[in-house]
Amino acid sequence: MQVESVLPLVLGISLLSLAVAVFLARQVLGADTGKPEMRAISDAIREGAEAFLSRQYRTIALLSLVAAAAIFGFYYSDREVKNIAEMGEGAFWKVTLSFLIGALCSAIAGYVGMFVSIRANIRTAAAAMTSLNQALQIALRGGAVSGLTVVATSLLGVGGLFYFFGGMHDYRHVPLQIVGFGFGASFVALFAQLGGGIYTKAADVGADLVGKVEAGIPEDDPRNPAVVADLVGDNVGDCAGRGADLFESTAAENVGAMILGIALFPVFGLGGILFPLLARAFGLIATIVGVFTVRCREDEDPMNALNRGYLVTTVLAMIGFGVSVFALLRPARGSAAIVHRPYLLLAGIVGILAAYAFVWITQYYTEYKYRPVRSIAEASRTGAATNIITGLAVGFECTGLPVIVISAALMAAYWCGKMGLGEVPGAGLYGTAIATMGMLAPCAYILAMDTFGPITDNAGGIIEMSKQPEEIRRKTDRLDAVGNTTKALTKGYAIGSAALAAFLLFRAYLDEVEKITGSTIRVDLTRVPVFVGGLLGATLVFVFSALAIRAVGKAAQVVISEVRRQFKEDPGIMGGTSKPDYARCVDIVTAAALREMVAPGLLAVLTPVAVGFTFRYLSPHGQTGAESVAALLMVGTIAGILLATVMNNGGGAWDNAKKYIESGLFTVDGQVVGKKSEAHKAAVVGDTVGDPFKDMGIPGRRPRGPGGGAGRGYPTPLRAKPRPPHGKPRL
Amino acid sequence: MQVESVLPLVLGISLLSLAVAVFLARQVLGADTGKPEMRAISDAIREGAEAFLSRQYRTIALLSLVAAAAIFGFYYSDREVKNIAEMGEGAFWKVTLSFLIGALCSAIAGYVGMFVSIRANIRTAAAAMTSLNQALQIALRGGAVSGLTVVATSLLGVGGLFYFFGGMHDYRHVPLQIVGFGFGASFVALFAQLGGGIYTKAADVGADLVGKVEAGIPEDDPRNPAVVADLVGDNVGDCAGRGADLFESTAAENVGAMILGIALFPVFGLGGILFPLLARAFGLIATIVGVFTVRCREDEDPMNALNRGYLVTTVLAMIGFGVSVFALLRPARGSAAIVHRPYLLLAGIVGILAAYAFVWITQYYTEYKYRPVRSIAEASRTGAATNIITGLAVGFECTGLPVIVISAALMAAYWCGKMGLGEVPGAGLYGTAIATMGMLAPCAYILAMDTFGPITDNAGGIIEMSKQPEEIRRKTDRLDAVGNTTKALTKGYAIGSAALAAFLLFRAYLDEVEKITGSTIRVDLTRVPVFVGGLLGATLVFVFSALAIRAVGKAAQVVISEVRRQFKEDPGIMGGTSKPDYARCVDIVTAAALREMVAPGLLAVLTPVAVGFTFRYLSPHGQTGAESVAALLMVGTIAGILLATVMNNGGGAWDNAKKYIESGLFTVDGQVVGKKSEAHKAAVVGDTVGDPFKDMGIPGRRPRGPGGGAGRGYPTPLRAKPRPPHGKPRL
Repeated sequence: MQVESVLPLVLGISLLSLAVAVFLARQVLGADTGKPEMRAISDAIREGAEAFLSRQYRTIALLSLVAAAAIFGFYYSDREVKNIAEMGEGAFWKVTLSFLIGALCSAIAGYVGMFVSIRANIRTAAAAMTSLNQALQIALRGGAVSGLTVVATSLLGVGGLFYFFGGMHDYRHVPLQIVGFGFGASFVALFAQLGGGIYTKAADVGADLVGKVEAGIPEDDPRNPAVVADLVGDNVGDCAGRGADLFESTAAENVGAMILGIALFPVFGLGGILFPLLARAFGLIATIVGVFTVRCREDEDPMNALNRGYLVTTVLAMIGFGVSVFALLRPARGSAAIVHRPYLLLAGIVGILAAYAFVWITQYYTEYKYRPVRSIAEASRTGAATNIITGLAVGFECTGLPVIVISAALMAAYWCGKMGLGEVPGAGLYGTAIATMGMLAPCAYILAMDTFGPITDNAGGIIEMSKQPEEIRRKTDRLDAVGNTTKALTKGYAIGSAALAAFLLFRAYLDEVEKITGSTIRVDLTRVPVFVGGLLGATLVFVFSALAIRAVGKAAQVVISEVRRQFKEDPGIMGGTSKPDYARCVDIVTAAALREMVAPGLLAVLTPVAVGFTFRYLSPHGQTGAESVAALLMVGTIAGILLATVMNNGGGAWDNAKKYIESGLFTVDGQVVGKKSEAHKAAVVGDTVGDPFKDMGIPGRRPRGPGGGAGRGYPTPLRAKPRPPHGKPRL
Repeated sequence: MQVESVLPLVLGISLLSLAVAVFLARQVLGADTGKPEMRAISDAIREGAEAFLSRQYRTIALLSLVAAAAIFGFYYSDREVKNIAEMGEGAFWKVTLSFLIGALCSAIAGYVGMFVSIRANIRTAAAAMTSLNQALQIALRGGAVSGLTVVATSLLGVGGLFYFFGGMHDYRHVPLQIVGFGFGASFVALFAQLGGGIYTKAADVGADLVGKVEAGIPEDDPRNPAVVADLVGDNVGDCAGRGADLFESTAAENVGAMILGIALFPVFGLGGILFPLLARAFGLIATIVGVFTVRCREDEDPMNALNRGYLVTTVLAMIGFGVSVFALLRPARGSAAIVHRPYLLLAGIVGILAAYAFVWITQYYTEYKYRPVRSIAEASRTGAATNIITGLAVGFECTGLPVIVISAALMAAYWCGKMGLGEVPGAGLYGTAIATMGMLAPCAYILAMDTFGPITDNAGGIIEMSKQPEEIRRKTDRLDAVGNTTKALTKGYAIGSAALAAFLLFRAYLDEVEKITGSTIRVDLTRVPVFVGGLLGATLVFVFSALAIRAVGKAAQVVISEVRRQFKEDPGIMGGTSKPDYARCVDIVTAAALREMVAPGLLAVLTPVAVGFTFRYLSPHGQTGAESVAALLMVGTIAGILLATVMNNGGGAWDNAKKYIESGLFTVDGQVVGKKSEAHKAAVVGDTVGDPFKDMGIPGRRPRGPGGGAGRGYPTPLRAKPRPPHGKPRL
C-alpha cells in the first residue's frame, strides 16, 4: 500500500461510516412508534433529555471558550521562547483551533448519539410488541449510530486536521499541533460525563428515596414525579456522557500513538504515524459488518446474538489490524532497520486478550454464580453493616486480578515491541501503543452494545409506565437484562483499555513537554517535588470523588424536596387521579446537576495547572513543574484505576447480591432466604450505597492527554455505568 | 560537644530512661488493686492477654527465624559478588544478627508495655474510687513505662549495635549493617499489629453482633461470654501492637537518618550520623520531665493536665533538638562547607508544626462540632445507605488537607535543607530527615498518652462489669473519654510523622541498593517496568486491606458461633444465674486471630520480594528489579497514606455522628433527633462499618525500611486505634 493513499482511505472510510450511520438512523426512525400512551412517555423523556443537553452544552461551550483563550494566550505569549517554535509554525493558533474543533466534534457526536437513542427507545418498545428480533435490531442499530458517529467523527477530525495542517510533509510537527483536538475532546468529556453522571444519579437516588422509601411505591411508578427524570438520566448519562467519553478516548489515543510514531519515523517513515488511523478505520468496517449480521430467533437469548456480532467484528478487526501492521509497519525506503512484524501483530493480540480477561474478571466479581457476590449475600444475614463491610472488602480485593492482567499485558506488549523493533529507541513503548490500538479496534461495536443499554432500559420503562401486557414486558425485560450485561462488559473493556492506554498518553505528554522545554524529562519519584506531585495526584482522585458524591447528594436533595412538595400540594397524584408535573422535576435536576458539576470539574482541570505553575516557580530549572505534573498524572491514574475498579465492581457486586437474595436461590440450611427477609433489607442498603459508586465519576481512569503542555491533560471521570452482568430484569 | 562523647551520652540516657521506667512500673504496681470482684475481671483480662501474647510471640518467633535464615542466605551467597562486600566485612552475619536483635527488642518492648498496662487498669480503677488525680497519674505513668521502654530500647539497640560493630571508626559501613535492626523491628511489628488488630476487632464485632444485635444486651454486659475477649483486645491491639509499631518507627527512622548522614560525612563528620540518636535521647529526658509534671485538680478536665505535660515535653524536646543541631550539625574539622544551622533547626520546627496541623485536621473531620460529622448525622435521616455514602464522601474528602500539609512540609524542609547546606548533594533530603526527627522528638510522651487509652478503657470496663457506684463510673468515664481523645491525637501524629518519614526511608533504601548494585537508581515512572511496579504497589494496599477485613470477618464468625453455643447450652447465662466461660472465648479468638494473620502478613512481606526477583529476571541490566520494588514501595506508601486516612477519619466521623445523635444536640426544625430515632439506627450501621476500618491494618502507612536490599522492607498496617476526639463516654 502506498503511504500517500492511507489518509484518503481513512477519510473515505470515515465518511462511509457516517453515511451508514445516517442510513441506520433513518431505518430506526422509520419504525413504528407504538401506542399514544407510550409516545406520551417517550416524548417526555425526549424533551427532558434535549432540554438538559442544550443547557449543558451552553455551559460547556462557555467553559471551552475560556479554556481556548487560555491555551491561545499560553502558546502565543511563549511562541518564541521555550522552544514552542519547535512545535512548528503557527502552533499557537493551530493548537487552539484543534481544541475548538475537538470540543465541537465531541459535542456533535454526543448529541447525535442521544438524538437517536431517545427516539429508538419508543421504537424498540413498539417493536417488542411484535418481534423480539426486531426490537433487538432497532436497539442495536440505534446504538450503532452512536458508535459509528463517535469513532468516525474522531477519525475524521484527527485525520482531517493532520491533512489540512500539512502533516504529509511536516510530519514532525503536525501531530504535536493536533493534540489540541484530544484536549478539546477531553474537556467536553469531563463536563459531559460529570453533568450527566450527577443528573442520572441524583434523579435515581432522589426518585428512589422519596418514592420507594417514603411513599412506598415501586420503582418506575408513574405516580412518582421524578420517574421521567430518572429515565432521562439514563440517556444524558449513558448516551451523551459515554459518547463523549469514548470520543475522547479514541481521539486522544490516536493522537498519542501518532506522536509516538514520530520517534519511529527513521524506521517506518510516515507509515508508523498513520498506522493508528488505518487500524481504527478497518475497525469501523468490521463494526458495520458486525452490526448487520446480528439477528436472533424469538426463543433465543438475545445476548448470544450480540456476542456473535461481537465475534464477527473482532475477527474482522483483527484481520484489518494485521493488514495495517503488514502494510504500514515495515522499514521505510532507505531504512536499514530490521522489523519483525509478527511480533508487532502479537502486541495487538495481547491487547485483545487483555480486554477479554477484563471482561471475564468483571463477571467473576459481579455475578452471583461466584464466591464474591455470594459472600456479600451471606454477610447480609447479620445486617446492613456486615453487608457493607463485606462489599467493600470484595471491592478492595477485586483490584488484584485486573492489575495483574494490566501489568502482564504492558510487559508483554513492551517485550513484543522490543522483539519486533530491536534496539530502536521507543521500541518497547510503541509495542504498548500497538496493544492499545488492538484493544480499541472493535471500539465502535462496543459502544453500540453499550448504547443498546439505555435504549432497552428506556423501552422497558415505557412499557412499564404505560402498563402494557405482561407478555410484552417480559420481552423488554429480557432485552433490559441483556443491556445490563453489555454495559458491564463494556465497563471491563473500558477500564482495561484505559489502563493500557494510560502509558501511551503519558509518553506522548512527555514527548511534547520535551519538545517544548528542550530537555529530557524523568519522572523520578525519589526527587521530593516529583514525589509530592504524585502524592497530590492520588489525593486529587479521592477529593474529586468526594466532591462528585457530594454533588449527587445535593442535587438529589433538590429532587426530594420537589417530589415532596408535589405530593403535598396535590394529594391526587398518589391517588392516581392527577398527573404529576414531570417536567418541573426534570428542570430542577437539570439546573442542579449543571450547577454542581462546575466545582469538581474545575478542580480536575485546574489542579494540574496550579501544581505545574507552583512547582515551576519553586524550582530553579523550570522543568520540575512538568515533572511534578507528570507524576501527578501517573500516580493519579494509578489511584483512579484502582478506585474506579473498587467502586464499579463493588457496586455491581452489591447490586447482584440483592438480586441473588431476591431470586430465591440463596438458601441457608435448606431454607430460602429471600425477599422480605432481614437479609434482603440489608442487601437493599448495600445496593443503594453501591448505586452512586457504580455510576459516579471517578477521575483518573485515563489521563487527559496529550494535553499540549504542563498542566493540560487531566484524568476525567469514568462514566461507565454497568448494571451487573446477566442481571435479572428489574423486580 | 566532643563527637566521641555523644554515643556514651545517648546510651547513658537510654539506660537512665529504662531505670525511670522500672521506677514508674514499681510505683504503679505498688498501688491499691481494689475490690475482689474487680480483681476477678482484671485477672481474666490479664490471663487472656498474656496467653495471646505468648502464643503470638511463638508464631512470630518461628516466622522470624525463617526470615533470618533467608536474609543470611541472601547476604552470604552474594557476599563476594554484587558489591555486597561494599557493605563492610562480615556484613552477612552482622545484618542477620541485627535483624534478630531488632525482632527480640521489639518483642520485649511490646511485652513490657502490655505487662504494665494490664496491671495498671485495675489500679487505675481502684484509684478512681478515691481521687481522679491519682487515677490519672497511674494510667499515664503506666503508659509512660511503655513509651520510655519502647524508645529507650530502640535507641539502645541502634546505638549499641553501632558501637559494637565499630561504627565510630567504620562509619561508612556500620549504618548499612544495622539496617537489619530496623527490618527485624518491622517484621515483628507487621505481625504484632496484624494479629492484635484482627483479635481486637473480631472480639469487638463478634461480641457486639451476638450481644447487642441478637441477644439485645448492652455493651460490656458481663453476661456476654465475649466481653472479656473484647477488653483483652484493647490490650493486645493497642498496647502490644502499637508498642511494636512505634518501636519500629523509631528504629527505622534512626537508622534511615544515620544512612543519610553518611552522604553528608564530608560536611558534618560523625556528627551528622549521630545527630538522630542525640535528638531522640533528649526527647526521652523531655518525656520524663513531662510525665512527672502531670497532675490535675479533681474538678478539672484531665485532658488539660495531659496537654500541659505535652507542652512541657515539646518545649524541652525542642530545646534539646536545638542543642543537638548546634552541637553536631556544624562543619567537621577540615571541612570547607558553610552550614547555616538556623535553617536546619527551622526544618525541625517544620516537622513539629506539621504534627500539630495533623492533629487539628483530624479533629476537624472527626468532631461533631464541625461540618463533616454533622453532614453524616444529617444524612442518617434518610437511612443507613445515605449515612454510608456521606461517610465515605467525608472519608474521601479528608485526604485533601493532610496531603497538602505533608506536601508543604516536605517542600519546606527540603528548602530548609538546601538553604542550610547549600549545594551539598543530599542537602534537601537531609532537611526532610531533620523535620522527621523534630516531629519524633516527643514520641515517647505521645506513646505514653496513647497507652493511657486502653488502660482507662479497661478501667472503665472493670468498674462497669463489677457494678461499682455511679459516681465512680462517672470518673472512669471521664478518663475514658480523655483516652479516646488522646488516641485520636496520636493517630493524627502517627500518620503525619509516617508520611514525612516515608521519604527518608525510601532514600535510605535506595542508598543501600546503590551500594549493593554499584549503580545509580532512578525510580522513573515513565519506564514500563517501574510504572508496573508502582501499579502493583498501590494494588497491594487494596488487596491487603481486603484480606485483613476478611480475616476479621472470619475470626468474628468464630466468636459468634461460640457465644451462640454458650447461650444455647446454658440458659442460665442470660438469666444471670451462671457465669459464662470467658476463657474459652479468649482462647478461640486467640487461635483464630493467629491463624488469620498469616496470609495477609505473608502477602505484604513476599510481594515485594516476588516483584523484585521477577523483574530482575525480566530485565537485562539487573537493576530494574530494585527500581520496580522502589516504585512499589513509594506508590504503595502513597496509596497507604490515603487509604489509612480515609478509613481512620471516616471511621471516627461515623462514630461521632452516632454520638452526636445520641447526645441529643442534633435537632431538625427545633425537634431533637436522638436515640431510638430512625436516624440513630442508621447511624449505628455507619458506626459498625467504621469500626473495623478505624482499627484494621492498612498497609503502607510507612514503608518498612531500610530493609537491606531489594524486596525487604514493606509497608505495615496502621494500628492507630483512635476513638474520636473529645468523644463522650460510652453511652
